[in-house]
Amino acid sequence: MTASTCPFRIGLLGHGTVGAAFEALLAERADRIEAITGLRPVLSGVLTRSSGGDFEELLARSDMIVELIGGLEPARDYLLRAMRAGRHVVTANKQLLSHHGEELWDLAREQGVQLRFEGAVAGVVPVIRVLSESLAGASIDRVHGIVNGTTNFILSEMERTGGSFAQALAEAQRLGYAEADPTDDVTGRDAAAKMAIIARLAFETPVHIDQVRYEGIEQIQPDDLEYARDLGLGLKLIGTAERVGPESLSVRVYPAFLYPGHPLASVSGPFNAVTVESEAITEITMSGPGAGGPQTASAVLGDVISAMIPPASVPPAAESLSIVTDVDSSFYLYLSVDDVPGVLASVATVLGRHDVSVKSVVQKGLGGRARLVMVVHRVLESRFYAAMAEIAQLDAMRDPPRAIRVIEEEFN
Amino acid sequence: MTASTCPFRIGLLGHGTVGAAFEALLAERADRIEAITGLRPVLSGVLTRSSGGDFEELLARSDMIVELIGGLEPARDYLLRAMRAGRHVVTANKQLLSHHGEELWDLAREQGVQLRFEGAVAGVVPVIRVLSESLAGASIDRVHGIVNGTTNFILSEMERTGGSFAQALAEAQRLGYAEADPTDDVTGRDAAAKMAIIARLAFETPVHIDQVRYEGIEQIQPDDLEYARDLGLGLKLIGTAERVGPESLSVRVYPAFLYPGHPLASVSGPFNAVTVESEAITEITMSGPGAGGPQTASAVLGDVISAMIPPASVPPAAESLSIVTDVDSSFYLYLSVDDVPGVLASVATVLGRHDVSVKSVVQKGLGGRARLVMVVHRVLESRFYAAMAEIAQLDAMRDPPRAIRVIEEEFN
Repeated sequence: MTASTCPFRIGLLGHGTVGAAFEALLAERADRIEAITGLRPVLSGVLTRSSGGDFEELLARSDMIVELIGGLEPARDYLLRAMRAGRHVVTANKQLLSHHGEELWDLAREQGVQLRFEGAVAGVVPVIRVLSESLAGASIDRVHGIVNGTTNFILSEMERTGGSFAQALAEAQRLGYAEADPTDDVTGRDAAAKMAIIARLAFETPVHIDQVRYEGIEQIQPDDLEYARDLGLGLKLIGTAERVGPESLSVRVYPAFLYPGHPLASVSGPFNAVTVESEAITEITMSGPGAGGPQTASAVLGDVISAMIPPASVPPAAESLSIVTDVDSSFYLYLSVDDVPGVLASVATVLGRHDVSVKSVVQKGLGGRARLVMVVHRVLESRFYAAMAEIAQLDAMRDPPRAIRVIEEEFN
Repeated sequence: MTASTCPFRIGLLGHGTVGAAFEALLAERADRIEAITGLRPVLSGVLTRSSGGDFEELLARSDMIVELIGGLEPARDYLLRAMRAGRHVVTANKQLLSHHGEELWDLAREQGVQLRFEGAVAGVVPVIRVLSESLAGASIDRVHGIVNGTTNFILSEMERTGGSFAQALAEAQRLGYAEADPTDDVTGRDAAAKMAIIARLAFETPVHIDQVRYEGIEQIQPDDLEYARDLGLGLKLIGTAERVGPESLSVRVYPAFLYPGHPLASVSGPFNAVTVESEAITEITMSGPGAGGPQTASAVLGDVISAMIPPASVPPAAESLSIVTDVDSSFYLYLSVDDVPGVLASVATVLGRHDVSVKSVVQKGLGGRARLVMVVHRVLESRFYAAMAEIAQLDAMRDPPRAIRVIEEEFN
């Protein structure tokens, strides 16, 4: 903490996967947060289920409470007490909000405090903020979501391997995408809690989790996936909240086949995604990692910063990175050449001299000429263009070479 | 306007496609906005390039200025004068912000007024708000974007038809996706302006459009797309802003091939999409319609509401739609049956009696038994399940029938 800045004291409830990740992220990003808010965030204390601790004592030492303890009680009691004491609160507790959301939101409004909960739904995918703010004025017709990463992974795995639900579940558990007791995930109940919260925001109607119909994926057979493939369909566990006629709403979770053109059809593995449909805007789709400690902690941190100070509408005064123009890229290179022996060797020699290494080549002969199409590995662009200028001078070259950059997936 | 509510007076600059759509949307959503903000939004006047009008006079009658007039001047002058007079402003002017962003943002900070600009980048895709707020605490490594719908449509069209750039451009113009003078779009300059703004927010570094390297798509040959397909690649016009080493930033726009697994690879037609990468969160992708009057107007309206009152962190007190449980769905139905004549007819008769109509069927014989897999058109779920219960009683049924819902793409 620098001597000149006020500390902003955050009391943390819970220290599981997300809690620990939040503590680490808060420490790592403290300088940045101080630059944005003018306040230095510090952890004033941590209270867990196992170690216990005195909540009133922690509250007295905290400007804000972050609840990552999970479950209904004592989380509900702690949040109510914190808000009654005038503290802003941030939570990632979908279960609590899908049971007692109205009570908590009513109190927040009454007390004039903030209650933020981006981390409760779809991890780092900013569906809560986008529904509450970007689309505040929109008339929403329907929200479809893949809001449970465990089941999305299991279904992707069944499609990929042709294996059974039990086999895919075991693999998900092995990789840490499913818990030892996966009941809440595979029955659809976890997704139902998230859809209750989404429906509340999109349609201004209180929805208790018990009002959400849900079905899970335990009954899905490998056969279903195989036949569906013949019909051009892929399977997802989908949550839907939609207006039905002028006066009614339906909120449900169910396995569903999607046609390939659907914006959620390409979401695979442990990802989450939400599509919001509105006549005026057609649709917005947001996707990203659905769970995991660092991802949920990042969503929580975004909420903490917004609760520390109202988000500024303009970017902070500029810092400065220098702007560079020469960077590494992978390239596709198209050459139209005379079909004579040794052309590929000449081209490869020039590329090699400039440290450009070839990843793949397609050569097609066409009468007396040939086309060489290659993809080269990432290399400083200036090097690649120097090589290309030299290749353009080779005798066998028919037309000027053409190059287009190639982007590979960065994460996987 | 109801007698009891304060009017909130919005002065509108510009009345082109977006301006007219904004005026219509504001009128349509006025009740909703009044419910959220407690203020009744009214248009206090419209000033256009052609009709002219007295800006000072409009300013005096306005609580907020919405600038949709486009171009550098007089837009810059109007916004500066509005902010100096203490008014919040909302703009969708990418050109202005990519030239004079720092001047405008500095003044907004100095005056303590809001300057919102979601509509300037990627239409209704909420990239500005997500970068500024949800990811305020994140350390961003890279942003990739498809931020020009015209070029994305043209490239999708070239891939689909095998035709030339000129043919695809003509089709884009015919459908209204490209302007009569498409220079700014096809040269990459429009995308460069948007990437300058995105880079400013993601990396806190002032970026002028002249510092963004850009290449367009006029040189792309049908051959390139064909050979690339052999290599498993698809082509997009990509904007990239990325950290290069600890001290540098690269911002550029260029046609690029993407491998199929890339989150932007499936974005086709006149859509926009942005992927934000950060070590802590892996990546978030947002997509939606990139332009169009109603879409951009919807982004502007979200900004107007946020500037009228700070966004509440909790949903407004509840209205109430009733929650229904019986809705229309399309279904996949899997039947394992004895392979005897007339089974399909029996099944079809039962379905018909319940008004369930069949869209497609796959039948496979396997020794003495057969599998009937069908997809039925949307029907009230209770009807479908009644039919299924009756089908389960047919003599030829070997196993209980299985049903899974099917979601078709709603928009196209």
